[in-house]
Amino acid sequence: MTTDAAPRRRILTGVRPTGALHLGHYGGALENWIRLQDEYECFFLIADYQVSDYADDFQRVRESVIEVALDWLAVGLDPQRSHYVIESMVPEHAELATWLSWWVPLGMLERNPTLKAEMADLEAKSSVPVAFFNYPIMQVANIMLPKAHLVPVGDDQLPHIELTREVARRFNRIFERQVFPEPKALVGRIARLVGTDGDAKMSKSRNNAIFLKDDADTVNQKVRGMYTDPTRLRATDPGHVEGNPVFTYHDAFNPDVDEVNDLKERYLLGKVGDVEVKTKLAKALNTFLDPIRERRAYYEARPNLVKEALDTGSRYARKVGADTMAEVRDAMRINYTA
Amino acid sequence: MTTDAAPRRRILTGVRPTGALHLGHYGGALENWIRLQDEYECFFLIADYQVSDYADDFQRVRESVIEVALDWLAVGLDPQRSHYVIESMVPEHAELATWLSWWVPLGMLERNPTLKAEMADLEAKSSVPVAFFNYPIMQVANIMLPKAHLVPVGDDQLPHIELTREVARRFNRIFERQVFPEPKALVGRIARLVGTDGDAKMSKSRNNAIFLKDDADTVNQKVRGMYTDPTRLRATDPGHVEGNPVFTYHDAFNPDVDEVNDLKERYLLGKVGDVEVKTKLAKALNTFLDPIRERRAYYEARPNLVKEALDTGSRYARKVGADTMAEVRDAMRINYTA
Repeated sequence: MTTDAAPRRRILTGVRPTGALHLGHYGGALENWIRLQDEYECFFLIADYQVSDYADDFQRVRESVIEVALDWLAVGLDPQRSHYVIESMVPEHAELATWLSWWVPLGMLERNPTLKAEMADLEAKSSVPVAFFNYPIMQVANIMLPKAHLVPVGDDQLPHIELTREVARRFNRIFERQVFPEPKALVGRIARLVGTDGDAKMSKSRNNAIFLKDDADTVNQKVRGMYTDPTRLRATDPGHVEGNPVFTYHDAFNPDVDEVNDLKERYLLGKVGDVEVKTKLAKALNTFLDPIRERRAYYEARPNLVKEALDTGSRYARKVGADTMAEVRDAMRINYTA
Repeated sequence: MTTDAAPRRRILTGVRPTGALHLGHYGGALENWIRLQDEYECFFLIADYQVSDYADDFQRVRESVIEVALDWLAVGLDPQRSHYVIESMVPEHAELATWLSWWVPLGMLERNPTLKAEMADLEAKSSVPVAFFNYPIMQVANIMLPKAHLVPVGDDQLPHIELTREVARRFNRIFERQVFPEPKALVGRIARLVGTDGDAKMSKSRNNAIFLKDDADTVNQKVRGMYTDPTRLRATDPGHVEGNPVFTYHDAFNPDVDEVNDLKERYLLGKVGDVEVKTKLAKALNTFLDPIRERRAYYEARPNLVKEALDTGSRYARKVGADTMAEVRDAMRINYTA
């Protein structure tokens, strides 16, 4: 971490530790984050307070925290420049969220369509943990604690940023002090990556993901099994390129634009078989993933470096968070004993 | 605070800072607490995280915290032996509550009749703050953080203790370690004191309270206006003693049992007027309140002593809380970077 003379503007972004990261995370987030490190002071958060859906399998939380850190190191998020933060190692997140929850009526959460859908999902289940109601406020607190100016997000997260802006405004107004900036959202190049099965979203739980840590054989096999164009029965049938996940991946991860255009043309004319399209995709993906795998192997063999990144970043974030909380207490005038 | 060779068992109890305390608090709680200080290490908590119903009037929260501390000092809760704790000065409360909320399904809260009634009340209003869902978990965290063995409560709080026991058991079972004791409840001598207007509960909001800080004139005036026996029109009518608040207060706060018995006998026979009964009650109450008022005046003139009590107690509680959280993290094995 460097301390600049003029402090860089801050970014807060992160992920819930639910397992290894995949191509969807890369295109929707990581790619952006890597680039943003040059311009901003980045806080990359592993939100372990927010996976209460894994309450029955806490071991999975523990393992996922390390998996995420490994993937971040592997793609080139640089812990020398940016801060790797474990949410629960900065309990000021919980402290700030507790206060903020005073000024967030339930109705404000229900205006968020993502949350509303999740709530409906959960209500259908027998037991919603109370933690579920905290997690949107916790996200707000995550952003506000380091006073982030910019939040790179997926498009389904935009309402969370709107909520944060509303809470920041409310706090500043009530306590008559500009403590918190109103953060802006930044949506990634690929807002949402289709799954290998053609499902709208790549996700671990849908079992349609290509992970950043998958080895070449696994990638070859997953690509071979990919959903393509269901209307195309023979390689000589003209096919569809739009909405065809194989071409979506080519567009996203194959840098050889000529090759991709050639494949598309021949596909539309029924002059190329799925096998060739997929073989070239697998090759492009493996070329893309190779340096990521190499760096991952490097850090897997050096767990102390992973811990050091998490420890250093979390400690730094805690210092920043403590400063913000001091300001919050001062604005609220709850330094009762001062 | 003394550090005994064999640590005393711990008590956690407290109050939401909603204003000055009254006779209902005394008979239902304070009287008990004063006595318990001899035997237990007592943590007296001012629960400022839990008054989100005052979110629109934060100044009232600030003032109430000091009011409560003054009343405690006035009645003889001894900050040399016990710990005066401001909840928000121990943010580990928020941290522990955040984790515990994973293992408390909403349904568990809804089994609590007090909470259920409060939820129904709030749902009728336009905006329930999310904080409302946190406060029962926060109460659980309040008790668990110092690993309290005993919790003096009003009878309407018994379900909260049952919830705490359930959460403590659950945590210990999930993480296979006896981190938390299962606390027991202790109900005060007067579970609930009737209001001056005959309403079932004395409370500030019902405007039927005699405050510990009321001066003699105010007490005289409030007692003169008290509800007595509505069936008794003249002093010569036989009256009712049962359920008559004037006699409830005599029983609770007039140590002259002979006088009280004499008044009751004559009241039943229609041989005493309300004026005499009330005059004697006012006198007894003022005698009871005089030393409390004196001590309050002493501390009102010495705000630094009040702050010192709050500061010392809160710092101590934070140390205890940090120890517990270290144990919690260890049990949960979330020392990811250790």
